[in-house]
Amino acid sequence: MKKTTILSLLFLISVSLFSQEKDAAYIRKIYDEALERGESYSMLHYLTKNIGGRLSGSPQAAAAVEWSRQQMMAYGFDTVYLQPVMVPHWVRGNVEVGRIVNSKKLGSMEIPVTALGNSVGTGPEGTLAEIIEVNDFQELAELGEAKIKGKIVFFNRPMDPKLMDTFSAYSGASNQRGSGPTEAAKYGAIGVIVRSLSSFKDQVLHTGSTNYGLNVPKIPAVAITTKDADFLSDLLKDDKGLQFYFETHSEMLEDVLSYNVVGEIKGSTNPEEIIVVGGHLDSWDLSEGAHDDGAGCVQSIEALRLFKALGYRPKRTLRAVMFMNEENGLRGGRKYAELAAQNNEKHIAALESDRGGFLPIGFGITGTKAQQKKMIDWAPLFHPFGLYQFKAGGGGADISPLRTQDVPTIGYIPDSQRYFKYHHTPIDNFEAVNQRELELGAASMAALIYLIDQHGM
Amino acid sequence: MKKTTILSLLFLISVSLFSQEKDAAYIRKIYDEALERGESYSMLHYLTKNIGGRLSGSPQAAAAVEWSRQQMMAYGFDTVYLQPVMVPHWVRGNVEVGRIVNSKKLGSMEIPVTALGNSVGTGPEGTLAEIIEVNDFQELAELGEAKIKGKIVFFNRPMDPKLMDTFSAYSGASNQRGSGPTEAAKYGAIGVIVRSLSSFKDQVLHTGSTNYGLNVPKIPAVAITTKDADFLSDLLKDDKGLQFYFETHSEMLEDVLSYNVVGEIKGSTNPEEIIVVGGHLDSWDLSEGAHDDGAGCVQSIEALRLFKALGYRPKRTLRAVMFMNEENGLRGGRKYAELAAQNNEKHIAALESDRGGFLPIGFGITGTKAQQKKMIDWAPLFHPFGLYQFKAGGGGADISPLRTQDVPTIGYIPDSQRYFKYHHTPIDNFEAVNQRELELGAASMAALIYLIDQHGM
Repeated sequence: MKKTTILSLLFLISVSLFSQEKDAAYIRKIYDEALERGESYSMLHYLTKNIGGRLSGSPQAAAAVEWSRQQMMAYGFDTVYLQPVMVPHWVRGNVEVGRIVNSKKLGSMEIPVTALGNSVGTGPEGTLAEIIEVNDFQELAELGEAKIKGKIVFFNRPMDPKLMDTFSAYSGASNQRGSGPTEAAKYGAIGVIVRSLSSFKDQVLHTGSTNYGLNVPKIPAVAITTKDADFLSDLLKDDKGLQFYFETHSEMLEDVLSYNVVGEIKGSTNPEEIIVVGGHLDSWDLSEGAHDDGAGCVQSIEALRLFKALGYRPKRTLRAVMFMNEENGLRGGRKYAELAAQNNEKHIAALESDRGGFLPIGFGITGTKAQQKKMIDWAPLFHPFGLYQFKAGGGGADISPLRTQDVPTIGYIPDSQRYFKYHHTPIDNFEAVNQRELELGAASMAALIYLIDQHGM
Repeated sequence: MKKTTILSLLFLISVSLFSQEKDAAYIRKIYDEALERGESYSMLHYLTKNIGGRLSGSPQAAAAVEWSRQQMMAYGFDTVYLQPVMVPHWVRGNVEVGRIVNSKKLGSMEIPVTALGNSVGTGPEGTLAEIIEVNDFQELAELGEAKIKGKIVFFNRPMDPKLMDTFSAYSGASNQRGSGPTEAAKYGAIGVIVRSLSSFKDQVLHTGSTNYGLNVPKIPAVAITTKDADFLSDLLKDDKGLQFYFETHSEMLEDVLSYNVVGEIKGSTNPEEIIVVGGHLDSWDLSEGAHDDGAGCVQSIEALRLFKALGYRPKRTLRAVMFMNEENGLRGGRKYAELAAQNNEKHIAALESDRGGFLPIGFGITGTKAQQKKMIDWAPLFHPFGLYQFKAGGGGADISPLRTQDVPTIGYIPDSQRYFKYHHTPIDNFEAVNQRELELGAASMAALIYLIDQHGM
């Protein structure tokens, strides 16, 4: 090598090392600000305690839209605006009854049930029929119409406790809830019971949406707790003719006008390049929606607030988005991507937080090999804060429609061990969220946004 | 190199790779057993709900001794026995009153207080005096007897929220509780208030032991919550003559006979080499002592139970020890080391779990460079389970006396972000412990014991 080549190489290396040190120092400042003067926790307190559960189309969802608009304006973001979107309006109704009835109708016992989101109700007369327990759709198909017709299908496949990533365990069991009612209806079932999608054996109900297929009867469907599912399964071993009665009054009403809420800090040198970070503002109705996904919303706002507090002037445009209707329609996420395409917006990265406000452990990215490598190479900057999982594959439901525009999508990954205790339950409340974990998550997200803003994606 | 040398080298490499694969496979089996059929959570339920808080010398501590003895016998450990040890018997008394009184004695308000462990009480007449707030012992010394005499010293230095390892933040603040009363008494203070050692601003009291020095008056001492500490500090800015009244009835009674509980599985090939794993059975009296240290106790029993369940025959002798009196005396830990020396026992490693039943993130080891390297080299075997912190330095209070016999001591490290919400408080109850986190901790400990048993330390 020529001397000049060596010298310029050394120069490049030293620039790169200097840049790394500069990045590490700035990231430390971000975490310090979040841990010393963070506001994610007080925001979450307001959202959960003063507004509460925020099912799409509900008054609480509307209140949450207005709250997040005002909150981002109060923080002095450059622009805050609403994106109108029509959302489904499913309501649970007031009465939910579940009852196990023995085959001779000599005895019965009540157990708690919760209607699956989007499901039709039984109406006041309820549904009473024999129960047939199955573990998966293959078993259902093998039993066929002969055994299924006129019965209530009981889907009882547990989440696999051996999987370290509980989202994998969830994926392995969730089709029972998402497609179970439609699959069972194909064989003439008149109702469905689903084992709650939980990592734990307890007395907690987990709701969540079901999606009815076209040209298949819509049959009512409820979840029962994992302990009751085991109990019911045991009873069925002794009494093959065991029946179940349930009464629900859920119904799907007309679509309602709602909004995504967008807050922006304009980029100073590349304002046309957008980095979006978001969570979904809607939640289920059973709780305050703290982990799912109040946490992701306040962390997204907090990420931008941290930059304001530190006096950071981003190169690119940073945008926090509160998506509407992730839980039972994804209309907000679709609308956002549609408008981005319509307006010829250039998104260089999209980051979502929708795995709860737990301890940060990493990020997953869906994008080109180069984009994946770029993010994974940043991992050492996060090691001092306990984040070691930097991997290919990741994103979030709300930002997934942006993939058709080749936007790299990144999922924020907190530890997943506790998530499926709270997910879609009556106990997903403010008290279930730890302040430091929530703050560390917001700081981790802001740190990644900082790196993307500094170095592109 | 000669051909034979190359061949034997290749042989050694392939043996080593095979051994790694074998280890990885066995460790996976350990985790599977813990996650699918683990018993740590049900043990913890019994210990917390049926026995409860277990302060040294209390009936509950005696019940916990008997419970853990029976539990380890029920699991079929080869030997289970008690090590008698005299322990301090401190009692809180029934009444604890705290009251802020303004300087003109025109108004007062009650705030909750909790006596520091080992502290003397005020008796029924209570202690009333002006408050003087200090941040550290240097400030105390600068104020000197002129300003301190006859007053109540209020130690109000918070734990630093910026530190990722909250135990470092705890260490940075805990001398206020441990030595504050004695330091203040040197300058003639008649009472002490300590800001609760918490990572959070809330209304939770944190007790914990104080240690009176020799030849210094023992003055009564209480903790107040972090929110009240901030409140009191604010009031003091406006009313320099503000007074505090508190009444406590705590006292140190005569020492009581208690026990360490030891359960053993005999080694098959090297029974004289002992690997010890433990936690401490005593806890503070304010709660059920779930994280501190019910978790460590049940994880230690579970680690050995996992080996029984898997039909594993250890080479070395594995020993689970429930130490008594970590909280306010460490008599159990000292006794254990004393007996080990007396009996010429050869401990090759000691592992302690006393940082709560949270998500496992690693292990820290105190020992020779070679011992440190050996453990740190095992780290990749734990990466699939999310453990990345393998570092020099670590152990636990109860096993620390073994260091004088050059036993390498290892501390199990769970994530620390939530610990100082529960530590020494009334809310350190069963409900604060997550089943999967507890089980993963037990599995991680068993996995490390397996590696030490297989490969020595």
